[in-house]
Amino acid sequence: MRETFSEISPSDFFYRNRDLAGFTNPSRALYSTVRELVENSLDACELERILPEVYVRITSYDSMETVDPKKYIIRVQDNGPGVEPEKVPEAFGKVLYGSKYKLRQSRGMFGLGGTMAILYGQITSNKPVTIETSVDGIKRYCYKLMIDIEKNKPIIVEKRIEDGRGLHGTVVELVIEGDYLRSSTKIQEYFKHTALVVPYANITFVDPNGRIFYYLRTTTEMPPPPKETLPHPHGIDVEFMRRTIRQSNEETLAKFLSKRFHRVGLKTAIKFLQYTGIDPNRSPKSLTEEEIVNMVTAMHRYEEFLPPDAGCLSPLGENILAAGIVKELAPEFFTIVARPPSAYSGYPFIIELALAYGGKMIENGIKLYRFANRIPLLYDEASDVSWKVINEEIDWKRYKIPQEAPIAVIVNISSTRIPYKTVGKEYIADRPEIEREIKNALREALRKLSAYLSRRSSEEHEKKKINMYLKYLPLIANFSKELAKKSRPPNYKRLLSSGEYEGEQKRIEEFTNS
Amino acid sequence: MRETFSEISPSDFFYRNRDLAGFTNPSRALYSTVRELVENSLDACELERILPEVYVRITSYDSMETVDPKKYIIRVQDNGPGVEPEKVPEAFGKVLYGSKYKLRQSRGMFGLGGTMAILYGQITSNKPVTIETSVDGIKRYCYKLMIDIEKNKPIIVEKRIEDGRGLHGTVVELVIEGDYLRSSTKIQEYFKHTALVVPYANITFVDPNGRIFYYLRTTTEMPPPPKETLPHPHGIDVEFMRRTIRQSNEETLAKFLSKRFHRVGLKTAIKFLQYTGIDPNRSPKSLTEEEIVNMVTAMHRYEEFLPPDAGCLSPLGENILAAGIVKELAPEFFTIVARPPSAYSGYPFIIELALAYGGKMIENGIKLYRFANRIPLLYDEASDVSWKVINEEIDWKRYKIPQEAPIAVIVNISSTRIPYKTVGKEYIADRPEIEREIKNALREALRKLSAYLSRRSSEEHEKKKINMYLKYLPLIANFSKELAKKSRPPNYKRLLSSGEYEGEQKRIEEFTNS
Repeated sequence: MRETFSEISPSDFFYRNRDLAGFTNPSRALYSTVRELVENSLDACELERILPEVYVRITSYDSMETVDPKKYIIRVQDNGPGVEPEKVPEAFGKVLYGSKYKLRQSRGMFGLGGTMAILYGQITSNKPVTIETSVDGIKRYCYKLMIDIEKNKPIIVEKRIEDGRGLHGTVVELVIEGDYLRSSTKIQEYFKHTALVVPYANITFVDPNGRIFYYLRTTTEMPPPPKETLPHPHGIDVEFMRRTIRQSNEETLAKFLSKRFHRVGLKTAIKFLQYTGIDPNRSPKSLTEEEIVNMVTAMHRYEEFLPPDAGCLSPLGENILAAGIVKELAPEFFTIVARPPSAYSGYPFIIELALAYGGKMIENGIKLYRFANRIPLLYDEASDVSWKVINEEIDWKRYKIPQEAPIAVIVNISSTRIPYKTVGKEYIADRPEIEREIKNALREALRKLSAYLSRRSSEEHEKKKINMYLKYLPLIANFSKELAKKSRPPNYKRLLSSGEYEGEQKRIEEFTNS
Repeated sequence: MRETFSEISPSDFFYRNRDLAGFTNPSRALYSTVRELVENSLDACELERILPEVYVRITSYDSMETVDPKKYIIRVQDNGPGVEPEKVPEAFGKVLYGSKYKLRQSRGMFGLGGTMAILYGQITSNKPVTIETSVDGIKRYCYKLMIDIEKNKPIIVEKRIEDGRGLHGTVVELVIEGDYLRSSTKIQEYFKHTALVVPYANITFVDPNGRIFYYLRTTTEMPPPPKETLPHPHGIDVEFMRRTIRQSNEETLAKFLSKRFHRVGLKTAIKFLQYTGIDPNRSPKSLTEEEIVNMVTAMHRYEEFLPPDAGCLSPLGENILAAGIVKELAPEFFTIVARPPSAYSGYPFIIELALAYGGKMIENGIKLYRFANRIPLLYDEASDVSWKVINEEIDWKRYKIPQEAPIAVIVNISSTRIPYKTVGKEYIADRPEIEREIKNALREALRKLSAYLSRRSSEEHEKKKINMYLKYLPLIANFSKELAKKSRPPNYKRLLSSGEYEGEQKRIEEFTNS
């Protein structure tokens, strides 16, 4: 008996292992489909600085009486820049083909999500996906596609050109087996969380029962669009170096390094090469394999490179986050901490953290809202680095915050590379650099909350005192009147009219003397 | 500005996203490399029923003085069946090419692990991997390979044929950047856990300091080799049905279903087709797309199919597990529960659970040993279904087991498809069927442990009683002697000689009367 070997296509791999991408069961699949398509829409709009208008509709494909799991039609429509018509088939019908394989912050990362949703739809419903897209509002290209999973190739079932009606953007419509009964809570939570960090978008969601949920724009300020960046020397490996050398046309190593790597100017390049003992004037292509390895090792160890510049990142910014918090949580108090940029293994990242307290919408206990590049993360909370920081590394007692206080913690990490542990993008690995930044941000926010609470409690204390005066002063005044045999009591009301209590003692003396 | 699209190879995908496969950092990568290569060796031996002899050596490639992370040579050698020489380049140098894309229980599942280790070695050391393999002991094929990551193709750097010296099996040797300082604990734990469930293997591990660890065979009994199986109707999807129809040559649907699906005989096939309203005599290839979808939906809902047969699975069996427990844990008491086969979404699985208590090697508190198809799972314990059952679903007080009792819980799940959530195979998703089986197994084991403990405590109680008698009886006897003015006390010793306490009362009466 001999082992038989076979090759499978990447499409086939993810078809067989769809759990890995968050398509575990009909409930999770419905959620993941909505999320992946909405993310693609928001990414596309933001890259072109278009204020997003996203319309999402889930309708029952089977009769309304059929019980879950059953087939649903999912339609996601945006006003983004659209997709070039000739790219449509591969962009939507081929796994590992996409626009996200660059060093740039985006919600998507693996270039898989949208195609996985289409693939899942196909294997559960056998229906083609419909893509309608217009880049100019003049022509609208309408495709019906299937995926040849074994070959990882799109099959064009139908192609039509319509009038663009002046609208640019993309519509994706597919049929999948889903379970709305068991996923509706997560889907609604997803929209609510998204609205919190994307207050510059209008999002409309129509559920299978025809109920309409609006998440309306409350600001027109948008975060700066993310930029592509060069790789930082601390984050590269031998394979990358070999590829880069192969593509290079620079004559000297010094020029090569300064042109192809982030934070390496000509001066730094020469200094670094002298440190490694390689002649800066040699041609990159003359390096032996051994020299390449040594150079990469030296690049990791050399500490004179400046840390990655976060200019390519697109954090939310305080205004946008504040607008989102006021809109979705309406707290009694909130504070936002934006940490300075930091880096792990050559990738820049920024932590933004907000603490919101009290009000009518925040329930008792600590509720964590996690975001990575503005995607809400809703599953596997306990495996996330933020959860770890909140529950294991902060001494809450130090901040004198009562156990069951109504608190929301919002954490957003922006990076050219989020260290997810699953393709399904559920949680962030506990890289020490990230952990440290979250911890520092949380501590700072907690100090502010703590100060607010103690100020509030002393204000409450003062209020109580005033209330007491309010109760007894008339009696005392009356008593004094009778005692002094006057016809009118003294005017004690002016004692209570002012919010300034510093003069209190003096005024009480005045009163006593009157 | 237009989005640019590009395609990447599967090799490139996993190169960019190596975190997904457990190659997050030098420490984790060293651990994952050892594990993936050892698993491949054990899988190969077990499939051919060869008692495994596995030799693993990690040596420092850089000088011993260099601090971690640094380069290590990893060598894994087995006495398995070897790999056909012409398959070697692709089997080791191409992602998504392998022997594991079938419905059969094996440690490997994604067909990725070994190649990922080689890929990681290449990108961190730029050294080719060495493969030596012999299927017959006559000729030994020696390859040096690199991977062209962008094309996902092996590059043969060197090929040699040597004398096989009568030995079949495979040797893999590669150089990677690793961190032994930070991974040694996990690596040793990995071997210890493996020895627990593979007591029929000889495993030798030589660490970078030259220390040798032996994990010796204590039984020659091996589990039955896993068999390939047909898919169960409950576990299939439309894509699978279309592929199967395309490959089919059966003339009628009834024959088609009975030949291509697990647990579907001709009679069941006809009954099922009548239920769906499709003529059993139609040709499979005549089905419309709509009919295929309806048939698949009906297959999921039809409840008359027998559940999947677990005959294709290879659980450990009580003898092997007992041998492993005695060898590695030497407990005071242990009990093994093998649950009957069960199934989730058409995939059969079997839970084996052991509870070990006390002895010198088990520390206080509950220690969980998780295995899936005999792979130890060491990371992300708190996300695993077994952890959930132990910590959230069992009322330990009910079993009267003290809080900090020294307990080891060993859970092994065998299945043709383990529902992992990551390619790194760290933890098992909480499918309700699996959760239920683990819960039932644990309850049964806890009842036995509880019975043992209460028996032990009543034995201890009896011992105490006897000790008390032993102390006072001579005094009472002497006192009686003096009271009765006899010269010799009554013979009380026979009261203590017997372990049977039922007659105690009677004997005491006798004594009193004597």
